[in-house]
Amino acid sequence: MKIKPLGDRVVLKKVEAEEKTASGIILTGAAKEVPQFAEVVAVGSGIVDGKEVQMELSVGDKVIYNKYAGTEVKLDNEEFIVLKQEDVVGVIC
Amino acid sequence: MKIKPLGDRVVLKKVEAEEKTASGIILTGAAKEVPQFAEVVAVGSGIVDGKEVQMELSVGDKVIYNKYAGTEVKLDNEEFIVLKQEDVVGVIC
Amino acid sequence: MKIKPLGDRVVLKKVEAEEKTASGIILTGAAKEVPQFAEVVAVGSGIVDGKEVQMELSVGDKVIYNKYAGTEVKLDNEEFIVLKQEDVVGVIC
Amino acid sequence: MKIKPLGDRVVLKKVEAEEKTASGIILTGAAKEVPQFAEVVAVGSGIVDGKEVQMELSVGDKVIYNKYAGTEVKLDNEEFIVLKQEDVVGVIC
Amino acid sequence: MKIKPLGDRVVLKKVEAEEKTASGIILTGAAKEVPQFAEVVAVGSGIVDGKEVQMELSVGDKVIYNKYAGTEVKLDNEEFIVLKQEDVVGVIC
Amino acid sequence: MKIKPLGDRVVLKKVEAEEKTASGIILTGAAKEVPQFAEVVAVGSGIVDGKEVQMELSVGDKVIYNKYAGTEVKLDNEEFIVLKQEDVVGVIC
Amino acid sequence: MKIKPLGDRVVLKKVEAEEKTASGIILTGAAKEVPQFAEVVAVGSGIVDGKEVQMELSVGDKVIYNKYAGTEVKLDNEEFIVLKQEDVVGVIC
Repeated sequence: MKIKPLGDRVVLKKVEAEEKTASGIILTGAAKEVPQFAEVVAVGSGIVDGKEVQMELSVGDKVIYNKYAGTEVKLDNEEFIVLKQEDVVGVIC
Repeated sequence: MKIKPLGDRVVLKKVEAEEKTASGIILTGAAKEVPQFAEVVAVGSGIVDGKEVQMELSVGDKVIYNKYAGTEVKLDNEEFIVLKQEDVVGVIC
Repeated sequence: MKIKPLGDRVVLKKVEAEEKTASGIILTGAAKEVPQFAEVVAVGSGIVDGKEVQMELSVGDKVIYNKYAGTEVKLDNEEFIVLKQEDVVGVIC
Repeated sequence: MKIKPLGDRVVLKKVEAEEKTASGIILTGAAKEVPQFAEVVAVGSGIVDGKEVQMELSVGDKVIYNKYAGTEVKLDNEEFIVLKQEDVVGVIC
Repeated sequence: MKIKPLGDRVVLKKVEAEEKTASGIILTGAAKEVPQFAEVVAVGSGIVDGKEVQMELSVGDKVIYNKYAGTEVKLDNEEFIVLKQEDVVGVIC
Repeated sequence: MKIKPLGDRVVLKKVEAEEKTASGIILTGAAKEVPQFAEVVAVGSGIVDGKEVQMELSVGDKVIYNKYAGTEVKLDNEEFIVLKQEDVVGVIC
Repeated sequence: MKIKPLGDRVVLKKVEAEEKTASGIILTGAAKEVPQFAEVVAVGSGIVDGKEVQMELSVGDKVIYNKYAGTEVKLDNEEFIVLKQEDVVGVIC
């Protein structure tokens, strides 16, 4: 059971602060007012009203996003955020 | 007696949290601030001011939507939400 | 004495909740926060600044509308709502 | 001494609620939150930044307008409203 | 010492309520919530980002303006308002 | 050490109220709610997203600006305002 | 571990007030309500929906930015701001 994001949206899975990512990177901080780290788990088609928005993100990307954007959803006891690509501000690399 | 949505709108029927869907999937959670799950029961023509918006949703789709969008309506003791397709953020599949 | 709506507006006459419509349909509910049901009594030309907006509504249509939109007006002891077609979200059929 | 409205504006003169209009029509109601009735007393050129907005209103038209729009002005002890044509929602006929 | 307004702005000099204008007209009223009367004392070039906005106002025009618009400025003990032409709603003639 | 404004911005240096300008002009007033007087000390390239905005202001111009616009910055104990040209409403000449 | 900004964004690293910059310049002030000084540490591709925004900033630039814009992020105990180039108002040179 998965979420297929519509249009230029992506689905993110939250990465807990201080958590070790798959590649062994330790993400520190994430204090109260700072944005969350997350991992891209699904990418929309990019088609918005017949026009194509170039999707720059790929599944597996670790990203920083605007925490006031998007829609939170809980599925099978996991928390996801569905938001437009433009609300992702950067990729951690 | 049905609601025919105008333009690029769809009509959703709420799926109760923890409810089993037709396909046997159990939708968990849906806490206070999270969006609701719903099922598409009608899809508009997509024509908005003479231009055609591509309707990506179909009747029967289980969707996640922005709960602050749309217009709630009660008809024959059932509750529906009429909202623009752009306020549906993803499809559960 | 009638109201001729300007541009892409329509004039609606409220249908009381629980009221029987002409076709014998009983409209239930319409609780405090839900939208009202109404009947279209006049349709504008659809001309807005020289461009034509396609009017999809016809006199007699039973509709659901966004109750926070439009302008209420009382004429000859009857209450009407004048609002843009885009604020009508669906037709009951 | 008159007000010549600029651009796509019209000047309205308020018609008191319950007042008899020139044609003998009695306008009822106009409760606290409802819009006011008014009579068009001047119509602008319709020229806005070199482009022409079609002025559909004529001097003498009885109209319903959005009471939260426009600018009120008192001249020679009479009260007028200067507002854009788009804030006039309908004509009484 | 003068103010040269930029772009599609004009400079207005307030006309006191009840004041007699040059042409002998008495402007009455101007109660608390109503707009002020003013006289045009300078007109901008109308050039905004390389495009020309047609300036319909001339020095000496008595105008009614939206009192919530524009920037007030005191120069040599006189009060002026600098505002865009679109915030002038009408000319008194 | 200087501030080079980006795009269609200018850098202003505040002129104290009642201050004598270089040309011997006394600027009066500037009460609490009125805009400030300032002198242009730097002008941006006018290039915004590849398009060129015509910069009408020159270094040395005495200007009136919208005090709620722009970004204040203190550098070497002097106070500057960096704001877009469109927030300068007029030039004193 | 770095942040790659998306689109027309840049990543800034805060420069403490009163701090000496690499070139020996002392940045004073930065009181409570004034903007912060920062150094550009990464520049996005400038590609936004297939169109290219010209990136005028380079890594190493000392800049003044609108402190209410952008997204703060803490990574490896350092604080960064990710914001659109248009929210950088000037370069210190």
